[in-house]
Formats: sequence, structure tokens, C-alpha cells
Amino acid sequence: MTIPNIDLIQVFDFVGTLAFAISGIRLASAKHFDLFGAYVVGVTTAIGGGTMRDIMLGQTPFWMTNPFYLSCSAIALLWVIVFRKLLVRQNNTWFLFDTIGLALFTVTGLEKTLMCTTADGGAYPFWAAIIMGAITGAGGGVLRDVFINEEPLIFRKEIYALACVLGGGVYYICTLFSLPSEMCAIICGISVVVIRLLAVKFKLGLPIIKGEE
Amino acid sequence: MTIPNIDLIQVFDFVGTLAFAISGIRLASAKHFDLFGAYVVGVTTAIGGGTMRDIMLGQTPFWMTNPFYLSCSAIALLWVIVFRKLLVRQNNTWFLFDTIGLALFTVTGLEKTLMCTTADGGAYPFWAAIIMGAITGAGGGVLRDVFINEEPLIFRKEIYALACVLGGGVYYICTLFSLPSEMCAIICGISVVVIRLLAVKFKLGLPIIKGEE
Amino acid sequence: MTIPNIDLIQVFDFVGTLAFAISGIRLASAKHFDLFGAYVVGVTTAIGGGTMRDIMLGQTPFWMTNPFYLSCSAIALLWVIVFRKLLVRQNNTWFLFDTIGLALFTVTGLEKTLMCTTADGGAYPFWAAIIMGAITGAGGGVLRDVFINEEPLIFRKEIYALACVLGGGVYYICTLFSLPSEMCAIICGISVVVIRLLAVKFKLGLPIIKGEE
Repeated sequence: MTIPNIDLIQVFDFVGTLAFAISGIRLASAKHFDLFGAYVVGVTTAIGGGTMRDIMLGQTPFWMTNPFYLSCSAIALLWVIVFRKLLVRQNNTWFLFDTIGLALFTVTGLEKTLMCTTADGGAYPFWAAIIMGAITGAGGGVLRDVFINEEPLIFRKEIYALACVLGGGVYYICTLFSLPSEMCAIICGISVVVIRLLAVKFKLGLPIIKGEE
Repeated sequence: MTIPNIDLIQVFDFVGTLAFAISGIRLASAKHFDLFGAYVVGVTTAIGGGTMRDIMLGQTPFWMTNPFYLSCSAIALLWVIVFRKLLVRQNNTWFLFDTIGLALFTVTGLEKTLMCTTADGGAYPFWAAIIMGAITGAGGGVLRDVFINEEPLIFRKEIYALACVLGGGVYYICTLFSLPSEMCAIICGISVVVIRLLAVKFKLGLPIIKGEE
Repeated sequence: MTIPNIDLIQVFDFVGTLAFAISGIRLASAKHFDLFGAYVVGVTTAIGGGTMRDIMLGQTPFWMTNPFYLSCSAIALLWVIVFRKLLVRQNNTWFLFDTIGLALFTVTGLEKTLMCTTADGGAYPFWAAIIMGAITGAGGGVLRDVFINEEPLIFRKEIYALACVLGGGVYYICTLFSLPSEMCAIICGISVVVIRLLAVKFKLGLPIIKGEE
């Protein structure tokens, strides 16, 4: 196994962004949004998590200095329009791309947090970086569901954001063994993918919290 | 035609803020919110877009250092209470004021972005300024609809946020002709107003995105 | 009466955070969220208001450098699971703790704003600090209701956020009498508690805003 070079990361970023945007656009289409609304929901799904992270870190939102992400979302919109009738058949592919995006966004969110400093100039604790990784991965889907006026799906269905948190924990364990950060990142990303795949394959979910009555 | 002086801009800011706040308060009243809730929804509609912009730009939210905007929203609340039964008859006026506000907020959002720098000290690309203009103009209405628990209206009805984007594009074209920024601003603002008026007059909307089945 | 020492403030912070988180978790359980979703809603209720404040003030969100708040929310989750059937009987206690939290968060939000400077280096006006106090106290509940897809409760039920605003006004009046800030804080906090208790005891609410018809 070789360390993935920058090109592979860009491919992952592309297919992940595409998959996130398409999930937003498909849900927007089910709500009969117009093209503009569908695009906004798609973009929000793709960049919402990273934007929340950057705002909390006091950074310029990543998509504001790089047209890549809004362009990806435009491609996603075109894709849904053109391949509308084939989307259901492509479900496995989009699920895989979504999972790759989840893993990549988790890693980048976690690592960006570790590289930033608080307003006081100190470092963020590792657990905060893990949470920022999970927000980067899963926050866009929450914003998407707020926009389409539904209860956030990730609060009820199979393990999703928890895969990001567990992956972040794996990253932390790797640092305890003094692994180089590229190795930590790869192992973390693979953990997220594996946890997510197992969760869906075996329909693993957390218990529903019981109400008072 | 003369360059509008600062007073005219302030009048536009006043009637625009008033119109935005009133649109929020009217929708809150339809949901039987109390006076406080109605005020919060009105304020959010009026200042929500600019607040999102300022947070993403790393700036202090504009309304926190100037009591003008919260006062305007209080006047809007009084207006709705006092003129409750006349509001429907005033619909055309409020629509016009709302459109003026949309145009002014688009221009101010776009120009503020061009004057700011990223966390790294660089300039924002022009397309990011256009998006910030659209968020300034249309973001408050999205937050309003999230608060009253409805799907955002601008994702489904006639052209609204798109008028801001197109107006921003007109601003960019003006800069290509090296027009002074006051002229760019005026032409951009007029474009937003004209596009919005035409959209409503001719019921122009974007196509609804088709679902999968 | 003695000035409360740091330990008492920490006790208030603990029971307030606990009460806020529990209110979120209980509502999440009514919506059949899973354990993770319930925890996220609980955390959001507890830290959401302070996070909104810190983002607007350009500060690092307070919970990112101190594991206390996420730990409290985990205790809240355990509490709801273990004492599920007793929660209704504990309602008065949780209401009291919630009110203590509301008062403490109002004071800390107001005082933090007074200690911060705008992006231009100036001080925030006092009325902005009052609003930040109210957002710190009541903002988490609004985010909670957005996440569980309900109209924010505080926009319709008895006086809640208004108690924060009035308490902030009391703080301001205290400063006019040149009281030391500890005294201002205590009197402000007590005002919030008293207003909230009276509001619930006498079912005091603001009038519902009347619709157009």
C-alpha cells in the first residue's frame, strides 16, 4: 500500500462533494424545489459541514477561495437532471462515493483543527478536533434536512456521524503510536469507511432513546 | 440622473429593513407567535442575511454597533399591530420596499466582501462577492422560514435570490468596463429591481426539479 | 449575603447545563431519535446559545477548550436513560435548574460581550451585550427546536427570552448606580430567576400577535 498522492485525494474530494450535493438535490426534488433551490440545498449539503467548522475555527470558509466546490455542485445538479431515471440504479455507487466523502471530510476537518489555534493562540484539544471532523463530515446533512424541513436523518437512522467520531478516535490512537500523520489519516479514513459499510450492511444502529411514558 | 447621496441610501436602508421585518412579522403572526417571537422573526428576516455574511467574512455583525436595524424592526412590529387590517391593501408598497431592500442589501453585501480580506490576508474572488451579495439579500428570508418551520419560500417561488446573483453579475460586467464603483452599484441595484419586478409581473420562475419517479 | 465564590458559579453552571441538555434530550426522545441524535440535541440545547454568541463576537466557542460542557451533556443523557420514569416527578427540580442556567448564561453572555472588542477594536454598546446575554440564555432552545423540527417554543409560550432581556436591563441600571460588577451580576441573575418564576407561576405571557384577518 502506498501513501495516496495529492491526485487521489482530489478524486476523493470530487466524488465525495458530488455525492453529498446529489443527496441534497435528490431530497430537494422530492420537495418540488426549483432549480435554484435544489442547487442551494445541494451546495449546502456539500459544503455546510466544512463551513460550520471554519466559522467555529475562525477561518475563512474553505469554498470561498476555491471555485471547485460550487462547480462540483453544479455538475451534481446537471447529473440529477440528465440521469434522473438512472439514479436509483446508481444508488450503490453514490452510497460508496458518499462514504468516501464522509471519510475524507472527517480527516480534513480533524487535521485542519489540529493545525489551527484558538483566539487565544493555544492549540485545540484532540477531542475538539474529533468533533470538528464529525461536524465536517455530517454537518452538511443536518443543514440539508433543516432546509428541506425534515428532522435530521442522521439523528435517527443507522450509524453515520458516529462513524466520524469513531474514526477520529482511531486517528488519536494512531498518534499514540507515533505514526506519521499520513498513516494516521489513511487508517482513520479507512476506519470511517469500514464502520459505515458494516453499519449499512448489518443495519447497525444505535438504540432509540425511550420517551417518558 | 445623479449619483444618489448618502441620504437616499439611508432611506432605502430604512424602507428595505422595514419591509423585510414586516414580512417576517406577518408570517410569525400567521403562526400565532407572541409579540416577542414576532419581533425576533422580524429582526432575523431583516438582519439575518447580513449577519451570515459578516460571520463568514470574519467581521462583527453590522447591527451590533448600530441601533438603527433593531429600531427599524421595532417600528415594523408597531406598524403591523397598528395597521393590521390595512396591510393587505399596502401589499404593493411593501413589495416595492422589499425589492428596494433586496437590491440595496445585494450591493452592500457584494461591496463589503470586495473590501474585506480572507483570514490569510488575500482578496475574495469576485464570484464569492456575488454569492455574499445574494446571501445578504436573500439569507434573512431563509432563516425566517426556518424559524417559522416552513420550507424556505425562495427555493420554490418566483425568482428572488437569483435576481441578486444576476445583479451581482451585472456589477461584474460594469467593472470590466472600468465604470466607477458608484455607477456599478447603481446599475447593479437597478438590475436587481428590474429582474424582480419582471419576475413577479410575468410570474417568471425557474423550472421545478423533477423527482426520480 | 456574600458574593458567591467560584465554586457556587461552577455548581450553577453544572446544574444549568444539565437542565438545558436534559430538556433537549427529552424532546429528542419524544421524536424517537437514537442515542447519538439525542445527545447532539442535548448538547446543542446546552451550548448552542453560547456558541452563537462566541461566533458573533469572533471568539473561539467556549466549549471547544473545556471538556466540562460535553461531559455534562453525557451525564444528562445517562440521567434520562436511567431515571426515565422519574423525570416527570422531577419536573419542578429541572425547571428550577433550567431557570438557574438561564440566569447564569444571561450574565456570562452579557459580561463576556462587555469584555470583548469589535473587529475594529471598539467596545460593544451595552444594548448589544444585553442581546448577547439573551442569545446565550435562550439561543440553545431555539436551535433545539429547529433540530427537532418544531416551531421554537420560546416564540409562543410564557416569558423566557424576555426574562433575559429584562435581566440585562437590570444589569445596566445597576451600572448606572456604579455598583461593582459582582453586585450587578448577582442582581441581574436574581432578576432573571424572579421574572421567570413569576411568569410561570402566574402564567404570564406576551400577547399573541394578531394575524391579518
